[in-house]
Amino acid sequence: MERISATYYIETPYEVEAAAQVLAGEQSSGTFVAVPGETAELKQRFAAQVESIEPLEEVSEPAIPGAVSPTGKYRRARIKVSWSIENFGYNLPTMISTLQGNLYEITQFTGLKLMDLEVPDSFARHFAGPKFGIKGCRDLTGVPEGRPLIGTIIKPSIGMSPEETAALVKELAEAGIDFIKDDELMASSANSPFDKRVDAIMKVINEHADKTGKKVMYAFNISDEIDAMHKHYDKVVQSGGTCAMMSINSVGLAGVKSICDRGELAIHAHRNGWGMLNRHPLLGIDFRAYQKLWRLAGVDQLHVNGIQNKFWESDDSVVNSIEGCLTPLLGGYQVMPVVSSGQWGGQAPETFRRTKTTDLLYMAGGGIMAHPAGPAGGVKALKQAWEGAVDGLSVEEVAEQYPEFGLSVEKFGKKK
Amino acid sequence: MERISATYYIETPYEVEAAAQVLAGEQSSGTFVAVPGETAELKQRFAAQVESIEPLEEVSEPAIPGAVSPTGKYRRARIKVSWSIENFGYNLPTMISTLQGNLYEITQFTGLKLMDLEVPDSFARHFAGPKFGIKGCRDLTGVPEGRPLIGTIIKPSIGMSPEETAALVKELAEAGIDFIKDDELMASSANSPFDKRVDAIMKVINEHADKTGKKVMYAFNISDEIDAMHKHYDKVVQSGGTCAMMSINSVGLAGVKSICDRGELAIHAHRNGWGMLNRHPLLGIDFRAYQKLWRLAGVDQLHVNGIQNKFWESDDSVVNSIEGCLTPLLGGYQVMPVVSSGQWGGQAPETFRRTKTTDLLYMAGGGIMAHPAGPAGGVKALKQAWEGAVDGLSVEEVAEQYPEFGLSVEKFGKKK
Repeated sequence: MERISATYYIETPYEVEAAAQVLAGEQSSGTFVAVPGETAELKQRFAAQVESIEPLEEVSEPAIPGAVSPTGKYRRARIKVSWSIENFGYNLPTMISTLQGNLYEITQFTGLKLMDLEVPDSFARHFAGPKFGIKGCRDLTGVPEGRPLIGTIIKPSIGMSPEETAALVKELAEAGIDFIKDDELMASSANSPFDKRVDAIMKVINEHADKTGKKVMYAFNISDEIDAMHKHYDKVVQSGGTCAMMSINSVGLAGVKSICDRGELAIHAHRNGWGMLNRHPLLGIDFRAYQKLWRLAGVDQLHVNGIQNKFWESDDSVVNSIEGCLTPLLGGYQVMPVVSSGQWGGQAPETFRRTKTTDLLYMAGGGIMAHPAGPAGGVKALKQAWEGAVDGLSVEEVAEQYPEFGLSVEKFGKKK
Repeated sequence: MERISATYYIETPYEVEAAAQVLAGEQSSGTFVAVPGETAELKQRFAAQVESIEPLEEVSEPAIPGAVSPTGKYRRARIKVSWSIENFGYNLPTMISTLQGNLYEITQFTGLKLMDLEVPDSFARHFAGPKFGIKGCRDLTGVPEGRPLIGTIIKPSIGMSPEETAALVKELAEAGIDFIKDDELMASSANSPFDKRVDAIMKVINEHADKTGKKVMYAFNISDEIDAMHKHYDKVVQSGGTCAMMSINSVGLAGVKSICDRGELAIHAHRNGWGMLNRHPLLGIDFRAYQKLWRLAGVDQLHVNGIQNKFWESDDSVVNSIEGCLTPLLGGYQVMPVVSSGQWGGQAPETFRRTKTTDLLYMAGGGIMAHPAGPAGGVKALKQAWEGAVDGLSVEEVAEQYPEFGLSVEKFGKKK
């Protein structure tokens, strides 16, 4: 019988082996006394199994509150646990409840993070995964291999009318942008109702496409309740749009999958709220595991933060996330990493040096909008940055060679 | 214009006031340079406002990784921030993205927890809240005021056939139980497909109801994708069931609300995965805020852990959660706190002493199933425990007065 496995980074005041067994027990049989009906045969078939234990460092302070160590030592380890596919079948929410459910409550752990998960081949028959992925997003935007899609976010995040937004979109389309998105704070607001915004923006985008043959991909933020999301989705399809965006943590897995399953629009997955799931080194879930869940749900683009970002996350962590997204899952399930947060092009050389990929959606906000030569200069500068990055140039070398990127360095590079 | 406010417990290496302004900026305007189009008028209307700051302790080590303090000190505070309802209207996922989105990523914080939130009166016109609540659940089970609903969980969590499960349900129904639930690890498994389980169990429950007039509430775990959940829901309704259960974190808000909106079944909300959102004192979300979101979504019963539980959570935290659930929201939105985890009745006196309520669903697993006099003895013992608790008796006094509870103390009380 196929098995699903999960790897955890744990910390415990007890013996690692004993703590691992508590986890396996809680997440399969799960009660504090033996009860009638729990036969050895049942245990054998349905019990979670501890597959491996790799002992790591010992520390003298617990990472998070839990049991107090009798020895004053807290042991860390990487452990791998597996479950029979029989336990939950092809049901992602129940798989999540098993792999990252009550186990965070277990007092035997003073730290627990789900680092990775492996699903069996039969998942490929039940979960179609991203309908567009990297290739599909390139096709929809007409961006050939060899450079990232260049994108931006409408700012201010909130407050602009549909007409003001459409005017900005027109300027950005003419500037040569590939992709634009709503902010995650903007769904349907008093001054920018969803349908009116779609009408105003798609008019501009369709006109530009008719004229130039290039259709800018606009990710409309459809995040809402189920019926409203489907209604918004219909509106985008009917208006000739190519993409919808969801705040995946806020909407939740069942809602996101219900939208992804429709398959008519590329799905831009915004991971806002991610920090609460990941920021502590010994609590929550690592991006390696997280991105697999959302690829199974079917998102086409997934946020990964960016090198030298404005947030707390380290470059190593961002690189790890990009690599995670680009590693095939079940032989495919391509998802496009969305690089954003304080990006202006100056990070392109380092991003390419460390990841050796251009299969990215590279997003800049102020880096494009506030470029000294206007948005057209900003978009040009970003393309130049990536050309230089692929050629192995440094930021300074790209700046010397390309005037628009030179202006970016003058304006945005000083504070770095 | 109405405003929505959120209270955060924060830690920062900088001035608290400055950090609070960064949060407000990121969660409304949100870019690292001023951009054209961001007028003073727009800012005034849509900007988040810092409403109050209450300075708290200073510490010398950061709670979670972030910026390093130039002074070596990290300042903690309670801050309150508000947004105009205009920013997102009546859209819970987008409200969540605003109140608990990217702000966890902000490097200016070395700790941030959403402690509470306040929604304006107009929410009552857009969100119906729990359709059954405390009174409705009492009516459905025929349990009068003055004692909690007594419930249990089918164990082992996974591995029993529908027939074996139904036989246990029959035994429990005859023992006088009010409520039974699937485990969160059990949805539709190889050996217990959902529809077959419903058929087998509801046959027993309906027969018992026909005979005695009492219909045991069984919470069938419908957690799955949207269409599957609605299909499972239909099956429960058609079979005469009264309750469906969801793992709310795993399913997500949009999916849960879509089920709650149907209003034909009481909704049992299981919070597995909660530990990852809450276990760190300075990261994530407090239950005070969390329970409000799910009451707005419409759940009728919500897990709160239990006094002297088998998990890491303190009694103070559990009491705080119960009080949160019982505090009216928008003048109502009653949700029944579900007390569970290592409960066997011995915690009833302390639970009542600290909360002064019997408006609970009080769940015991092994405490009922493994009672020396069988499940009937277990259910009787739990009712006795609550009778004694309401009378102000201690565990020892209840044990002296009631023989079944006395047996519970002998079997389960020793390890406490």
